Amino acid sequence: MLEKLRKEVWKVNISLLKCGLVTMHSGNASGRDFQTGYITIKPSGVDYETLKPENLVIVNQNGEIIEGALTPSVDMPIHLYLYKNLPEIGGIIHTHSNYATSFAALGMSIPAYLTAIADEFGSLIPCTRYASNEGDEIGKAILEVKNESPAVLIKNHGVFTLDNSPEKALKAAVMLEDIAKTLHLALLKGEPDILPPEEVKKWWDRYHSWYGQR
Amino acid sequence: MLEKLRKEVWKVNISLLKCGLVTMHSGNASGRDFQTGYITIKPSGVDYETLKPENLVIVNQNGEIIEGALTPSVDMPIHLYLYKNLPEIGGIIHTHSNYATSFAALGMSIPAYLTAIADEFGSLIPCTRYASNEGDEIGKAILEVKNESPAVLIKNHGVFTLDNSPEKALKAAVMLEDIAKTLHLALLKGEPDILPPEEVKKWWDRYHSWYGQR
Amino acid sequence: MLEKLRKEVWKVNISLLKCGLVTMHSGNASGRDFQTGYITIKPSGVDYETLKPENLVIVNQNGEIIEGALTPSVDMPIHLYLYKNLPEIGGIIHTHSNYATSFAALGMSIPAYLTAIADEFGSLIPCTRYASNEGDEIGKAILEVKNESPAVLIKNHGVFTLDNSPEKALKAAVMLEDIAKTLHLALLKGEPDILPPEEVKKWWDRYHSWYGQR
Amino acid sequence: MLEKLRKEVWKVNISLLKCGLVTMHSGNASGRDFQTGYITIKPSGVDYETLKPENLVIVNQNGEIIEGALTPSVDMPIHLYLYKNLPEIGGIIHTHSNYATSFAALGMSIPAYLTAIADEFGSLIPCTRYASNEGDEIGKAILEVKNESPAVLIKNHGVFTLDNSPEKALKAAVMLEDIAKTLHLALLKGEPDILPPEEVKKWWDRYHSWYGQR
Repeated sequence: MLEKLRKEVWKVNISLLKCGLVTMHSGNASGRDFQTGYITIKPSGVDYETLKPENLVIVNQNGEIIEGALTPSVDMPIHLYLYKNLPEIGGIIHTHSNYATSFAALGMSIPAYLTAIADEFGSLIPCTRYASNEGDEIGKAILEVKNESPAVLIKNHGVFTLDNSPEKALKAAVMLEDIAKTLHLALLKGEPDILPPEEVKKWWDRYHSWYGQR
Repeated sequence: MLEKLRKEVWKVNISLLKCGLVTMHSGNASGRDFQTGYITIKPSGVDYETLKPENLVIVNQNGEIIEGALTPSVDMPIHLYLYKNLPEIGGIIHTHSNYATSFAALGMSIPAYLTAIADEFGSLIPCTRYASNEGDEIGKAILEVKNESPAVLIKNHGVFTLDNSPEKALKAAVMLEDIAKTLHLALLKGEPDILPPEEVKKWWDRYHSWYGQR
Repeated sequence: MLEKLRKEVWKVNISLLKCGLVTMHSGNASGRDFQTGYITIKPSGVDYETLKPENLVIVNQNGEIIEGALTPSVDMPIHLYLYKNLPEIGGIIHTHSNYATSFAALGMSIPAYLTAIADEFGSLIPCTRYASNEGDEIGKAILEVKNESPAVLIKNHGVFTLDNSPEKALKAAVMLEDIAKTLHLALLKGEPDILPPEEVKKWWDRYHSWYGQR
Repeated sequence: MLEKLRKEVWKVNISLLKCGLVTMHSGNASGRDFQTGYITIKPSGVDYETLKPENLVIVNQNGEIIEGALTPSVDMPIHLYLYKNLPEIGGIIHTHSNYATSFAALGMSIPAYLTAIADEFGSLIPCTRYASNEGDEIGKAILEVKNESPAVLIKNHGVFTLDNSPEKALKAAVMLEDIAKTLHLALLKGEPDILPPEEVKKWWDRYHSWYGQR
């Protein structure tokens, strides 16, 4: 069970590089095993290109290392805080992906300007206040604004996505960067109409009822 | 005959990813067999990277599955509506490609600012009103604005391209994103002159009379 | 001798795709054999990915085919006109590369804002008036503005680079797109100082006296 | 020892192309052997794709060639001047990377708008005055503004990064382009808050105390 999660978290971490969401050593992905409560997370400052499944670090809910020879990501305490406070979350990703972070730099939330935002995020994508790196400040700032959207922007900083598996958190991180790019381009040419809540609901419902293989 | 179309539609679908027009599971391509009227279309929510020709779904004009084990794209009803109302169309593509969708987000049509637009699209590339996902709303909105251009922008949503084969619809989708990028960049620095209709006609005529191998 | 040129022109053509200067079938490169006066040029509307050296078309100065089974590029008459009027030119490239064409769309010349422009282009990169596709209009418009720069922008259209070999024309096309990107980004944030002519000369002289292997 | 450095400097040079920081022949990386004081540097005007470790040029502190058959980079005198005046520096990189150079074009320094800037650069990233290519003008202009940031922007020109190894200079060059892209995008939509110095210090301290494997 832990081996399966380790493999999935490894795959999601290397996908961050492949999908263009991270540069050099920035960013990290983790996953939770709901039975043991153990968290699997990227080691700190390691090349994505040489990262192997066995390099991932498994920690318990207090951050004590259960398996793994490397030091876990310096952002591990933020992941642990979020898992503790959001029991349904099974995967968390942190990136500084460029287009999404350009909104975060300004403290700008992203309204439902596009049907793709309604599909994937179901609402406005919120942005936190500025949070320092002390204690649980970043985790607390995320909880203050968390809504149905699996993505949260962090002011002057970057992005967290949280969903019930690492793969779903990856999809949210990729789609966030994609819609942030489209909206950035649109906002330089004008101001798109925001979809009214009843239209957002229609797209979200279709996407979550009919989309994909069942 | 169906096997040939299935192969072509598969190739066009994976080209959407290769050409950078889609992200994760977004977008879809279909093709029509003019003899049987059958439509071959991408299955819903499937990775482009692992998509195989045998995963494509073949449906009749009412959307009943003729061949294929997977659920067809959630956008299949839009494709069927367009094929029914536009008898000359043999290939349809839907994407949220970033630059083109940044115009669509704003409800902006794209005038013939460049000789490449005259070559490939022959006129202004129109943008629909906002259309909800209910019934045939999107298909109807497309027909309201459809002109000689093989590409139509969908307000707050994305892009459809329609041509007499899947390969031609792919070329239109790629060229649309390319000219949308160039125009986006130009519009941030100024307002290009629009080519007068008689100049548009000269480029369109040259392109459709002399271009390529015959 | 012709075989060597055919290989070089083929390599330069496929480099257009690899360097991101062309999309689908757009763009073309040619080279001149100074002994025979023959021109080697890309065939019309052929995929760069499947292009082989033997697909290139060799024509004489009147555009009559000397070797090759395919139809030459529809832009061949422009290449022939430029070779006839500029005896020192041995390679010509035409693209719609996005950043450079965004300046061309607006009819904007590019002044020497960067030391890299001084190095490679030695002066302002000029932009022509709008030219239709009739007769020698495009070639004439290029000659009206041609200066020491190996690159010329074509209003509402794209780019031509001309140098004494196909490889040098390729370098000019790549460097043009690179500096056009940097300048586009700069112009959105402010107005860079233009280098005075005596400073442009210092960089051009250094680059043409000391740069590279001799 | 020199062989190890030669290999590292070669790897860093080819990484410039792989990381998208250079085009054609632009840019160069060098490294210093602290025992002998010898500098290993890229040869002038050579393709990154065909560059081999044995093509690198080793020179002494006066620029006299110790090993290597090729002419060193035309920017070698700038590297030598910086190594002479900054004894702790072991690696230097010069690029015209697009987003960073768009700030340099305008003579704009980059304040600590993002936590990633605090992490990696620890302060405002300074920009020099315009410097001609004569004598030690560029080196002097860099020393005038050099602070704790390993990156310095050069007005109307490009970027230098300097750190205690070639690999660290590479990381600074990659991260500079990454944050310059994010900030460029943000500045087109608004003006981010600048992090106060005490917050910059917290991120810098965390990054330099806890980040990575020890």
